Amino acid sequence: MENVDLRHVPVVDNHCHGIWRAQNFDDLVSWRRAFTESADPGMPREHAATTVFYRRLIHRLAWFFDCEPEEETVLAARARRDATELVGAMLRAANVEALLLDTGYPPPEEVLPGAELGELGECRIEPMLRLETLMERLAAEHGSLGEVREALVAELDDVRGRGYVALKSIVAYRTGLDVREWSGEEAEASLREFRRAAREGSGRLAHKPLLDTLLHTAFSEAARQEVPVQFHVGYGDPDTDLLLGNPLHLRAVLEKPDYRGMPVVLLHECYPYTREGGYLAAVYENVYLDLSYGIPFLGYGEMLSFTRAALGVAPISKLLYSSDGIGVPELHWMGATDGRRALGQTLGELVAHGELRLSQAEAAGEDVLRGNALRLYRLSG
Amino acid sequence: MENVDLRHVPVVDNHCHGIWRAQNFDDLVSWRRAFTESADPGMPREHAATTVFYRRLIHRLAWFFDCEPEEETVLAARARRDATELVGAMLRAANVEALLLDTGYPPPEEVLPGAELGELGECRIEPMLRLETLMERLAAEHGSLGEVREALVAELDDVRGRGYVALKSIVAYRTGLDVREWSGEEAEASLREFRRAAREGSGRLAHKPLLDTLLHTAFSEAARQEVPVQFHVGYGDPDTDLLLGNPLHLRAVLEKPDYRGMPVVLLHECYPYTREGGYLAAVYENVYLDLSYGIPFLGYGEMLSFTRAALGVAPISKLLYSSDGIGVPELHWMGATDGRRALGQTLGELVAHGELRLSQAEAAGEDVLRGNALRLYRLSG
Amino acid sequence: MENVDLRHVPVVDNHCHGIWRAQNFDDLVSWRRAFTESADPGMPREHAATTVFYRRLIHRLAWFFDCEPEEETVLAARARRDATELVGAMLRAANVEALLLDTGYPPPEEVLPGAELGELGECRIEPMLRLETLMERLAAEHGSLGEVREALVAELDDVRGRGYVALKSIVAYRTGLDVREWSGEEAEASLREFRRAAREGSGRLAHKPLLDTLLHTAFSEAARQEVPVQFHVGYGDPDTDLLLGNPLHLRAVLEKPDYRGMPVVLLHECYPYTREGGYLAAVYENVYLDLSYGIPFLGYGEMLSFTRAALGVAPISKLLYSSDGIGVPELHWMGATDGRRALGQTLGELVAHGELRLSQAEAAGEDVLRGNALRLYRLSG
Repeated sequence: MENVDLRHVPVVDNHCHGIWRAQNFDDLVSWRRAFTESADPGMPREHAATTVFYRRLIHRLAWFFDCEPEEETVLAARARRDATELVGAMLRAANVEALLLDTGYPPPEEVLPGAELGELGECRIEPMLRLETLMERLAAEHGSLGEVREALVAELDDVRGRGYVALKSIVAYRTGLDVREWSGEEAEASLREFRRAAREGSGRLAHKPLLDTLLHTAFSEAARQEVPVQFHVGYGDPDTDLLLGNPLHLRAVLEKPDYRGMPVVLLHECYPYTREGGYLAAVYENVYLDLSYGIPFLGYGEMLSFTRAALGVAPISKLLYSSDGIGVPELHWMGATDGRRALGQTLGELVAHGELRLSQAEAAGEDVLRGNALRLYRLSG
Repeated sequence: MENVDLRHVPVVDNHCHGIWRAQNFDDLVSWRRAFTESADPGMPREHAATTVFYRRLIHRLAWFFDCEPEEETVLAARARRDATELVGAMLRAANVEALLLDTGYPPPEEVLPGAELGELGECRIEPMLRLETLMERLAAEHGSLGEVREALVAELDDVRGRGYVALKSIVAYRTGLDVREWSGEEAEASLREFRRAAREGSGRLAHKPLLDTLLHTAFSEAARQEVPVQFHVGYGDPDTDLLLGNPLHLRAVLEKPDYRGMPVVLLHECYPYTREGGYLAAVYENVYLDLSYGIPFLGYGEMLSFTRAALGVAPISKLLYSSDGIGVPELHWMGATDGRRALGQTLGELVAHGELRLSQAEAAGEDVLRGNALRLYRLSG
Repeated sequence: MENVDLRHVPVVDNHCHGIWRAQNFDDLVSWRRAFTESADPGMPREHAATTVFYRRLIHRLAWFFDCEPEEETVLAARARRDATELVGAMLRAANVEALLLDTGYPPPEEVLPGAELGELGECRIEPMLRLETLMERLAAEHGSLGEVREALVAELDDVRGRGYVALKSIVAYRTGLDVREWSGEEAEASLREFRRAAREGSGRLAHKPLLDTLLHTAFSEAARQEVPVQFHVGYGDPDTDLLLGNPLHLRAVLEKPDYRGMPVVLLHECYPYTREGGYLAAVYENVYLDLSYGIPFLGYGEMLSFTRAALGVAPISKLLYSSDGIGVPELHWMGATDGRRALGQTLGELVAHGELRLSQAEAAGEDVLRGNALRLYRLSG
């Protein structure tokens, strides 16, 4: 069984985050924190370095820095590099054609500005708008629910014209993917609760009737403009209730005929719900499945496993490469390397099974790594 | 690792549907519609042809028609064949011993009559009774709930005597697999709602208290006569809420001692809930797991994957081959080919692992492809 | 791809049960009952001997007894052996360093006493305390809820001092893993219901408010003493509702800061929810995942599959070997053999993928088979 060679295909990273300006780490523990979704102190101290992901990372970095594959040696070699030079070198080694950035996190002041990142990485930068961040601001600034919704419509009136290629929702982290329809009264009461909490210091929008209601407003705009909406689904930090992170909870939204014009992108292969996500992409014309190879932090075998499942269930035209990289350039770089390899191996298996010809497999690889994203986000124009 | 050779074993297709009389398609889009569970117009137009399933289909048909493996060429070659001749050729190529037909869908007037199908395919045809179709008719024709139930008991008094080898329920598509017990009043109210909806033009029985209550009546009859009941579980068109399609929702029915005489067949390997279905087959003596290789529309890797999981958890004596083929003969034919291959490869792995001797593996293959079904549905007699 | 050789590594079996004194079986059916979670009479009679697990068992026993690999021959050869001699031979062949025993089941009078078992197997025996058994006794013996809780605190005041290395909860079998907080009134009412049922002959504690409330008392003690609590999760006999056996239902317990000192061990790889269990081990510092190779009764392919998933998601420092063996020594022995093999093969794949060096893979194997358990349960001291 021979792998399909995708090593020279540039990637359009359909979902990632900014990279920190500062790339220095005080010690091993703070460095390891970049490679776990856990906030518990014991994780970087005792466990995060024992994941297969982290072991692979150290081996790859030893190769990149041409040093011994030991954690301390690698981190010392890394510390000798200039931060922006390192970011550029890794992005260029990743052969990135475009990065679609969720600019809602990390905070803008912590990360390299888009223009600089694009120059360093010799790639296009396309920002995406995180809905919850915008909604939190508008819900704080405006009076009645009607006014908040009006302001939201105004902000979203021309998403592409304002420079965004997509919207992004983290409702799975807040109140679950089962976005419902609420009465005006319920939503108003929820807004009042949000305000009360905000006055007490917590401006975090996790008030279900309010958040759901505002999301419906955003979905209408997205559908009207045919702008994709990305949803965090599945694996994430423990803030998310993974039971409610099952993409099948999106059913009510997907079944609504009014939203059929809104492409829905399920992020992170919905891990571990990849088959469920692939099923949705197979039965709803507007559902797409993002295959993310940086985060979640997985062994290569798990990546192979979700890649095989996704390609086995969903139309290939619905699959999109990403890294979900954040903070350090390693994730963008490892993701691109691992994604090409896992996809190339899986496509090689399809050729060996007699399901694809080699030329079809190569075209499929290119579609998943970049072509599908160029079309979906209208980047070619 | 050598595959166990099952190429010459005839299959008893334990669950499939009728094949359309008319096999002509106006264009690519209407043809592709036979290979997606989606009703969205964009799916056959843009995505359905990019599934690995569809790519495999085109390759196989090119071999069957001896033409170039291009979609248009294959469809043109197919159009040159007489419809009934094509159906017969494919069924015979599939080497089918018996087809167990859910006659509830497609509508009888659209499909080849059983007798003709059997003649064309040189195989036995065994009809199964779709419960919801019968119940809809009886609930419309009869007066009180008591009368409806009485009529149902009368219709089901001798299932085998009336020519059916099994009952089939699509409750997963209607109100979910969590069939509950309702008070008489709740069921009566539900019947009234069903009638009101029927008068307004919708005779679809999706009224949970009524449907559940009638199903309990049917289950009692099935248990008394030891007639198997098949349940659609898992993957299907978006009509189904896949969260409620998890076979574990059947627990209340399975735990009821009165129903222990009723063999329960979980269809479509409960995809993606194969392990959950296999678990039920491992702990309830009356639960069987159907392995369907036509629908869901999967890549070969996914078929291998569910076959391995099923054989790894459930007793082999509980596993039954099917295609779930419907409308076109391709699904019956591909299912048989893929099923033999995936099963043969998985059994070969068990031999290589030292778990089965070759003779045991061959016998296991024959049991899954036909023997278990012959026994369960009492077809040998 | 070469397997990592772990054949000579002793195992610390982090979760198993006692072995029956009596090892004689009247017939095939009663013998097969030891290898199914089903209580249905039809299972051992018709189906339990057709699992891949059972076929593998017979092959292994034929090797062990040096006889023909036929069920009757194997059972006859087994019957010729002295019970305690057989237990000792199998445990020694399993190369067991320590057995952590859930002494709550089977009943103590049916099993070999710990001291004798340890002598026969030439291994350490470390008992664990089953919480529900203790709670049932205390709830029957004491008066008010306050008194029951006080008695519970007294019994758990020094878990290690009383000779237990861990606590074990089977709440998944009783009322589900979603352990909640209840008002004093609700818990009192629940205690009254438990007492009423007890007077009527059923002393089984399956009263959710009461059980959850007592578990919170136990968790506080466990957290204070940093004593691990094992939870049955996933696959089990049909007593368990597998929907409620999903480890994600433990979220409320895991999120509680007060319990962060309590190591939580998810048993049976949470089968089939291994990825969900691995996710929890990756994001909560105090969550560990037990990999059990005796029960559930699986084919080797399924074992490989869950081993790969676990190693791909969870930190290796969080994984613990077990057999879940119970009653017959075969499960302890097969589990050790299969566990070493599946783990060795999976680690070999990680070496082949370039994720681990051979020395790292060998160390990882030793950690999962014994080292992690020695540390977690403080057995080295």
